[in-house]
Amino acid sequence: MHLVVVGGSDAGVSAALRARELRPGVEVTVVVADAFPNFSICGLPYFLSGEVPDWHRLAHRTRTELEGAGLELLLDHTAMVLHPADHCAVVRRPDGSEHALVYDRLVVATGAAPVRPPIAGLDLPGVHVLHTMADSFRVAAHLADRQPRSVIVVGSGYIGLEMADALTRRGLRVTLIGRAPAVLPTVDPVLGELLVGELRRCGVEVLGGVAVEAIAHRAGQLVVTGHGGVERRADLVLVGAGVRPNAELAATAGAATGTAGALRVDRSMATTLPDVYAAGDCVETWHRLLGRLVYLPLGTTAHKQGRVAGENAVGGRRLFAGSLGTQVVKVFDLAVARTGLREAEARADGFDASTRDLETWDRTPYYPGAAALRLRLTGDRASGRLLGAQILGPRQAEIAKRIDVVASAISCGLGVGELSDLDLSYTPPVSSPWDPVQQAAQAWESMERSAA
Amino acid sequence: MHLVVVGGSDAGVSAALRARELRPGVEVTVVVADAFPNFSICGLPYFLSGEVPDWHRLAHRTRTELEGAGLELLLDHTAMVLHPADHCAVVRRPDGSEHALVYDRLVVATGAAPVRPPIAGLDLPGVHVLHTMADSFRVAAHLADRQPRSVIVVGSGYIGLEMADALTRRGLRVTLIGRAPAVLPTVDPVLGELLVGELRRCGVEVLGGVAVEAIAHRAGQLVVTGHGGVERRADLVLVGAGVRPNAELAATAGAATGTAGALRVDRSMATTLPDVYAAGDCVETWHRLLGRLVYLPLGTTAHKQGRVAGENAVGGRRLFAGSLGTQVVKVFDLAVARTGLREAEARADGFDASTRDLETWDRTPYYPGAAALRLRLTGDRASGRLLGAQILGPRQAEIAKRIDVVASAISCGLGVGELSDLDLSYTPPVSSPWDPVQQAAQAWESMERSAA
Repeated sequence: MHLVVVGGSDAGVSAALRARELRPGVEVTVVVADAFPNFSICGLPYFLSGEVPDWHRLAHRTRTELEGAGLELLLDHTAMVLHPADHCAVVRRPDGSEHALVYDRLVVATGAAPVRPPIAGLDLPGVHVLHTMADSFRVAAHLADRQPRSVIVVGSGYIGLEMADALTRRGLRVTLIGRAPAVLPTVDPVLGELLVGELRRCGVEVLGGVAVEAIAHRAGQLVVTGHGGVERRADLVLVGAGVRPNAELAATAGAATGTAGALRVDRSMATTLPDVYAAGDCVETWHRLLGRLVYLPLGTTAHKQGRVAGENAVGGRRLFAGSLGTQVVKVFDLAVARTGLREAEARADGFDASTRDLETWDRTPYYPGAAALRLRLTGDRASGRLLGAQILGPRQAEIAKRIDVVASAISCGLGVGELSDLDLSYTPPVSSPWDPVQQAAQAWESMERSAA
Repeated sequence: MHLVVVGGSDAGVSAALRARELRPGVEVTVVVADAFPNFSICGLPYFLSGEVPDWHRLAHRTRTELEGAGLELLLDHTAMVLHPADHCAVVRRPDGSEHALVYDRLVVATGAAPVRPPIAGLDLPGVHVLHTMADSFRVAAHLADRQPRSVIVVGSGYIGLEMADALTRRGLRVTLIGRAPAVLPTVDPVLGELLVGELRRCGVEVLGGVAVEAIAHRAGQLVVTGHGGVERRADLVLVGAGVRPNAELAATAGAATGTAGALRVDRSMATTLPDVYAAGDCVETWHRLLGRLVYLPLGTTAHKQGRVAGENAVGGRRLFAGSLGTQVVKVFDLAVARTGLREAEARADGFDASTRDLETWDRTPYYPGAAALRLRLTGDRASGRLLGAQILGPRQAEIAKRIDVVASAISCGLGVGELSDLDLSYTPPVSSPWDPVQQAAQAWESMERSAA
């Protein structure tokens, strides 16, 4: 059997490796658009910050390791067109010539492309959209060769925050401009405001509620202008305005698409084309709590979907369990994490949601280094079901894994009260007899009892 | 209604507060054997280490807060005898006089007492068993007044390890003597050996496989002798040999007892006596995975059982969800945690258990500070069910909350494979696209597939 995988990032490589793991006899060819298979794109901010000086270290696995696992890698090859009826993918070689790859099964893992917002001047020298290894090399070269002293980051989502952190660390003066009033619109504004405080504490100028309209070149600098007369100058501009699915290859061949133009897949990760699976940022994602397909591109999800696609492509019967949109980001000395639904999201989907806000300690308050955590826990008043949580606090406060406890509980359909029934670990240096997430659960129940 | 609670530690105070929270009209009297209600006994090592200089800070709540919540506290009162048929508890006042407390419902939360191992010389001056606030004050006074320079800690369980850490920090030379070959017999010996390495790195002399036989006073020092001719001298000896349930009050009144002499309770925390509930270290504990009663005294469990007992004592219908024996301890710069069953424990209960040992990184290996974690994951070969996990690594590596993710998964009855389906959080500074516990789950599945 010949499995062809189009895409050499998280989803594609996961699929290819899983196929070989389960069926060592399968021939697996991976078509990689650049020369960097299996690189950690999420690690790019830490390369640009200087924390990871050698970009080679960003590889989850080296080319040698991938080939040792039995993958044939076609680097700098681009899949141009699919002929699903012929089980054939036309691929362009680095020299521009094309050839046809015949497959028994195909996994499409073509990822996403950065959104180009309607801003004049996006193509000026010194303006960068960060997405691929090549983008990062260009920014790295700019940093090394031109020694910029200031940067404007357009977009206050995850990438924007990580880049503000990274380039401050690198010694640049950073201005962060976002459309939303607070930063990180994927968490509640009250937490976004706390992040704004942290950014400012670390020297970042934060402008919220500003839609950037144009970037121009003037007197050796870049000038960014936005709604309401905002104008800022800097030596470098980075734009992080989100991504859109790179679905054209399969869509042009007739694959159905859905939300945001992403490829429609069932939970086996099969597309609507025969023998064609798809995974990662190019597909719709099954939401475990909403019970429907959404567009929610995340690296963790890409790995999971790729693994399922690879297993099923070689005859397995695995279903993708679904996403809860669990995410964490470090911003200077803080971390903020979320899982499940925020109140507004839950209400939009018909839940009778309410949220309890709680400030508590990450450990017993008497133990040195105890720090305050801010938690927001959302439940369904009608059923008592746990719907979501958000946690913000110092990066050392085990916030990521605390949100994961909630994610696990939501995955299992627990009620809010059942969260405080879980037998979680405790020792004074790291927690309290009731973990903060359990304290939040009890506070939610108490709030609801008072309201009843 | 009058609720009487016997015991002012975790279980008792949890019961009392929960009763008042749900039924503010209930009269609640708490009989406290000493003057220290609601103190964090788990925090005593950090008081003795000097990290928490003021012992008052070890109070979860102050006396004023407890009274403000409507509890009547009878401090330095001892419950002498129960007359369940009369709904009456005879209590001795500090002056030695006695009076009868009539109750509608009673919660027995009399805790545990330290085991006195068969060692000659346990009552010598300078030999201490650490359990109560009073014990700690005696040790603190000894440390302050006599300035001991060396200590022998007898017992290499949690308390022994915490005290070895605490008194090393305090500047004493520490010798740790345990019966088991490795330390911390509640985790697998391979992890215990890693803890031994950490203890030695920090200057602790560790003697394993030694049963202590006698303690004697010689030439101004204490001499501890053990099996095989072991002999060590020090200025101070601490003994931590585990605990036994303090069940006499209720047992003498006719309450049924079970494992280790602990009070038998159903999952509503009712004893076999009418209108008498019990909770905490004096009762048997429902094991969520074994599905039977065990003796497993832990602070977290005491809080949970107390809360359930308090709720049901005032007419509620809550069931205690059960324990998984989830525990974590910090030993110098390491943390080690466990949940669920170890392989030998699982086999003893009829599971066809197997364990996968894995060393991996706590975060993406390229991110600065990445540290190795050692994981041991146990599953049932027949059903694929997740049974337990143990994790050891640097204390900053979110080990406690990683074990909690596994605890949550076990609580929900997940299979090993379903652990890697969970949507857990990721950012390079704190984790990997597959969390270490998911990597361990995949490695377990891969091992089982190879064996099949």
